[in-house]
Amino acid sequence: MFTTVRVVGHGRVGSAIGARLRERGIALNGEQPDLVLLCVPDSAIRDVAADIAPGPWVAHVSGATALAALAPHVRRFGVHPLQTFTRARGPEQLDGAWAAVTAETDDARAPGFWLAEQLGLRPFELRDESRILYHAGAAMASNYLVTLHRLASRLFEQAGAPPEALLPLMRRTVDNGFELTGPIARGDWATVDAHLAAIHEAAPEIEIVYRALAQVTAP
Amino acid sequence: MFTTVRVVGHGRVGSAIGARLRERGIALNGEQPDLVLLCVPDSAIRDVAADIAPGPWVAHVSGATALAALAPHVRRFGVHPLQTFTRARGPEQLDGAWAAVTAETDDARAPGFWLAEQLGLRPFELRDESRILYHAGAAMASNYLVTLHRLASRLFEQAGAPPEALLPLMRRTVDNGFELTGPIARGDWATVDAHLAAIHEAAPEIEIVYRALAQVTAP
Repeated sequence: MFTTVRVVGHGRVGSAIGARLRERGIALNGEQPDLVLLCVPDSAIRDVAADIAPGPWVAHVSGATALAALAPHVRRFGVHPLQTFTRARGPEQLDGAWAAVTAETDDARAPGFWLAEQLGLRPFELRDESRILYHAGAAMASNYLVTLHRLASRLFEQAGAPPEALLPLMRRTVDNGFELTGPIARGDWATVDAHLAAIHEAAPEIEIVYRALAQVTAP
Repeated sequence: MFTTVRVVGHGRVGSAIGARLRERGIALNGEQPDLVLLCVPDSAIRDVAADIAPGPWVAHVSGATALAALAPHVRRFGVHPLQTFTRARGPEQLDGAWAAVTAETDDARAPGFWLAEQLGLRPFELRDESRILYHAGAAMASNYLVTLHRLASRLFEQAGAPPEALLPLMRRTVDNGFELTGPIARGDWATVDAHLAAIHEAAPEIEIVYRALAQVTAP
């Protein structure tokens, strides 16, 4: 569909995407690209898009940014790889991840899906006005998983337990299909209260998080 | 060390432990066990222990319960497998997990470590008075990981995105060593505020959790 793509931005996501497109035999340095793909910070998308001479398709890989940010271009779409990227890995980190494709017309949906598939992603359609809520869910699942691990590690350190012991537990929690076990699953609120008292004493900054999570975990 | 062990309780944990001890050639139905291992709910430990005729070692597998609950027995210890268990798996779910061993004397520490190793667990020592804080950390890492997944899935459903798309994202977050990416890592508080506004509108019960987690995630 596109034979020449210009990738703007070489951060974690842009680097992986550029490398994957190269693997697919797509030219990245053509003078007249079919598509300009913005892999820049969300806050830069509007200005960078405005500077692109009209002609090519223009797309972004942001999770939360509305397509209007790509104005004045109207041949536009968004492909958000639902993955956390690291510089330590290459294009293979796209494999198996899903991608939210946002388009305003059928004409734009097709290249959005095509690009996602070229990248090795599993595309699904997402309405422009649902992007923020979707992205909040992604942040909850990934960023706050990091936070949970940090907080649990902090409690372990204060208890004199090795934080690395958390890893098999967290992996198995995922592997078991997120089946709830532990005190709340058993209705054992005495243990929950004991946890809260111990956290209040040892790491009071964590108390509000534990309490909020306990509340929404209760059946 | 022990050749005959009586396992009391056949829930998720007791079943896996019984099966593993059987694999190790340890007799489970002897008349005069060397060790009685309580795999009963925390709230039942005290009563069950009190009913055991003096003589054998007595131990429990609870994460949060103090050893005093095993009175009047004094040859006692605790081995808590740091894992989430399901009925759908067998003793192999013990493999690779860690175990918190609590003992009040050197004489009790040795059988605690021995039992953990027989079970296929990696033992570490935990002080009796640190158990609650340790267990709070374990609940944070496992139970609230289930909660995060539920909340993220709920946001995805409301956004019209497939919740199964969260799985590769969450697995990679773990595989990448819990490296923080996303808006907070970028200092992009405008996106965090947009998330909060969207959650407030679509799923207000989640707002307090998102806000508490954002606060402790901020550098």
